Amino acid sequence: MTSPPTVTPPYTAYVATPPRVADAKSAAAAATHPASFFVSDELRELILRQQNLLLMHPNPQAYPDLPNEVDNYHELCPLEAPGQPHKSTAFGYITTCYKATNMKSGQCYCLRRIHGLRLAGTKCLQLVALWSKLQHAGLVTLRELFTTKSFGDNSVVMVYDFLPSAETLMARHFSQPPQLNGFLDPFQDPSIPRPYSAQKNAVLRQQSSLMPESLIWSYVIQLTGALRLVHGSGLACRVLDPTKVLVTGQDRVHVNCCGVLDVLMFDNNASNPLAMVPHYQQEDLVGLGKLLLALSCNSVLAVQRENFNTSISIVERHYSADLKALIMSLLLSPSAGRQRSIEDVMPMIGARFYTQLDSAHLLAERLEDELAKEVQNGRLFRLLAKLSAITERPELNLEGAWAETGDRYMLKLFRDYVFHAVTDDGRPFMDMAHVVQCLNKLDAGSSDKICLMSRDMQNVLVATFAELKQCFQRSFHEIFESTMAKESGGS
Amino acid sequence: MTSPPTVTPPYTAYVATPPRVADAKSAAAAATHPASFFVSDELRELILRQQNLLLMHPNPQAYPDLPNEVDNYHELCPLEAPGQPHKSTAFGYITTCYKATNMKSGQCYCLRRIHGLRLAGTKCLQLVALWSKLQHAGLVTLRELFTTKSFGDNSVVMVYDFLPSAETLMARHFSQPPQLNGFLDPFQDPSIPRPYSAQKNAVLRQQSSLMPESLIWSYVIQLTGALRLVHGSGLACRVLDPTKVLVTGQDRVHVNCCGVLDVLMFDNNASNPLAMVPHYQQEDLVGLGKLLLALSCNSVLAVQRENFNTSISIVERHYSADLKALIMSLLLSPSAGRQRSIEDVMPMIGARFYTQLDSAHLLAERLEDELAKEVQNGRLFRLLAKLSAITERPELNLEGAWAETGDRYMLKLFRDYVFHAVTDDGRPFMDMAHVVQCLNKLDAGSSDKICLMSRDMQNVLVATFAELKQCFQRSFHEIFESTMAKESGGS
Repeated sequence: MTSPPTVTPPYTAYVATPPRVADAKSAAAAATHPASFFVSDELRELILRQQNLLLMHPNPQAYPDLPNEVDNYHELCPLEAPGQPHKSTAFGYITTCYKATNMKSGQCYCLRRIHGLRLAGTKCLQLVALWSKLQHAGLVTLRELFTTKSFGDNSVVMVYDFLPSAETLMARHFSQPPQLNGFLDPFQDPSIPRPYSAQKNAVLRQQSSLMPESLIWSYVIQLTGALRLVHGSGLACRVLDPTKVLVTGQDRVHVNCCGVLDVLMFDNNASNPLAMVPHYQQEDLVGLGKLLLALSCNSVLAVQRENFNTSISIVERHYSADLKALIMSLLLSPSAGRQRSIEDVMPMIGARFYTQLDSAHLLAERLEDELAKEVQNGRLFRLLAKLSAITERPELNLEGAWAETGDRYMLKLFRDYVFHAVTDDGRPFMDMAHVVQCLNKLDAGSSDKICLMSRDMQNVLVATFAELKQCFQRSFHEIFESTMAKESGGS
Repeated sequence: MTSPPTVTPPYTAYVATPPRVADAKSAAAAATHPASFFVSDELRELILRQQNLLLMHPNPQAYPDLPNEVDNYHELCPLEAPGQPHKSTAFGYITTCYKATNMKSGQCYCLRRIHGLRLAGTKCLQLVALWSKLQHAGLVTLRELFTTKSFGDNSVVMVYDFLPSAETLMARHFSQPPQLNGFLDPFQDPSIPRPYSAQKNAVLRQQSSLMPESLIWSYVIQLTGALRLVHGSGLACRVLDPTKVLVTGQDRVHVNCCGVLDVLMFDNNASNPLAMVPHYQQEDLVGLGKLLLALSCNSVLAVQRENFNTSISIVERHYSADLKALIMSLLLSPSAGRQRSIEDVMPMIGARFYTQLDSAHLLAERLEDELAKEVQNGRLFRLLAKLSAITERPELNLEGAWAETGDRYMLKLFRDYVFHAVTDDGRPFMDMAHVVQCLNKLDAGSSDKICLMSRDMQNVLVATFAELKQCFQRSFHEIFESTMAKESGGS
């Protein structure tokens, strides 16, 4: 079983809109415009990587027991490496995740399967219904819950949005060797040889080991935004662990696994299943404080009780007083029973909201600009595909010379003009701008004239693009009619 | 002179990246993916409208005196209707605006020409240099200032970013008849006949005439963000008029004309040209308050002293206490000389920052999704254009049968397979998905096999897409070599 666990098909294709985007109603804004003919390589690579991940399917040899379908989902692809799954420390159950396609909508989702769990009743579906109403850029939305025996046991499956190319905060910031993630772990094993004296190390650490403060604040703003929505809806995240927060792109975070503990620990006998929520909300604040402390010290060890003083002094030395105050206020118990609220965090964020907003607006403008570069290509591709369907067609309606006569002859000469032009000394004239301009003028029916020459150079025709457009439309319509007419006749 | 003042070329083309986007370094984020094959109509229309505006050029009959070039700019296109320009009430000078292209960068800018102004010295360029450093989504960046006699007088020209399809707040909210902008003006002429009783009108006004509060807060957040940057840089806007704030898209605002008054009223004899800035910053806050009051009452008359009490009561009745408090705090003089600051506004905005951020993030995700739909089309278009350049080429290197032999014959049969397929009963088989899939497999060099048949049906060839890809690459390389080889030989 040395074959890779997943294979990607050797072609690319168009895939469906994800529900988180389909749901978002916010409309286009901002004014910007094109640069080169095509989208930037970096962004295209990101998009193509995401599309590849959406198309990924499992190698059946690596996952021989994978069911073909589970409830309304098929095309399951495990998101973990093959082998014995281990028990989640956060949840106390074995869990596995699958990418899967909804059979009705064709959209991709992430199925989180909880092994060997039998629900005591359906009351907990009320909580799932509450969670599924929460849509926020900083939350991975829970879509539904179902039970299934398709995996050969009693499993509960919770369906979340699938974020391709997402990784956990743990994977991005805490689990790579320092060389790879660019940050040094101040709590790391001191036996690792260091090239400089301890003195010099401290200086180096100051300069390069810790995360930029702006990135931490960006996480703070996004996470508190998500928590505000969750707490405001009378719910609590209950798990704010580096393994349960996803990162996409440069710095976008998304709280994952919402509602899992609500389901696992649901008490069917409780009169009010939400009675403990205020308590869990306070725990969320502590969880956020721990997460921020770990990020600031660049180590999950930072939150251990024995490291606490060292951690806080690292924050104090390397970051602003605001960040330290924020972490302290989240971690320390409130005085005399006063309940803290996620709203208390806002004044500490202060003007950093403006920075976040400005960069979000600039990102939107940049994306709109990239889009403007590509927006013509779809049209040009369709136009050229239609032209290719007309020219050189062997026959139409039993007329063998169709492509060589009338309107089609004009279009054939136009095709030669666009693609087979030669320079004075007979060299091929290859110029994409020439192709694009000719096709654009054809599409617009420009009144510009061009000189079309037959291959034997015996005939010269002068035509406007408007005339050629009419030829084009009539010819394509003829093909289209022929498709339709016989279809209705035959049925 | 009844011909239109501007004409748009009858074709579309690719235009250059605007500097505000080229400058923005913020990189791509968020995870999302495609829906249909092509970008949504609404967004494409917006983008094409902007591209059209960038390509717009003037009708020479309407503007006979337009210079061909001014300093480093050419392709001037007036942004106002032809006729006698009038004196700007805000500036006290005649000003006119032109779209123009920078000769070096090829990028579009907006030139604001101040007629008949002779600069007393070059000291004010220091202020222009300060302004040109300010980049913010909520500011129209000032790029440079030059003096010119190209217009036949002494003019000062200030160069700003050009935002296509931008309109002023005045044009969007205050100058259209109520039917058009959807809001009624509570101070409008009562002689206009109304279909309902006054009583009923008041109810109607409550329900439909005023702007949604969320839109006003969106403006507040963007404008205060811009003011923060300006004030923090030791400058002041000095003009926060509905005619000097631009709106693009749904709700994006941009403070325009920054620095104009600084230049017009520059005192070369002053020891410190920035001495008055703290005073002007206080005026900016009052200006913002007036702007918000006018927006809340949907009338520029709202800010007149005699209407003040009515205006405030309109705000009180229809909007939240927060909005009223914000407007009051901006408009009323501070007690006993305490200087107010734009920072004081933040606590009043409060959690509304989160709403703005969430919608900005969702917009970015939506744009990335739209982009993902189109990102394949550029590649497919190039592929098809290359294929068209190979097939049916009349000759290459004096070889007349080039396109009909060897690799090219395979590609010709492939072209027929892609574009000229017919159904069993001889009808044309028209399916874009077939075209896209074949081209994608060709591009990827898939090992899938297809059956190619000669037109006389005498020969049947079985080939993999990988073999066809080799044919394709060799053939295109041959054309390309032929272009190059003779070029270097001839030179």
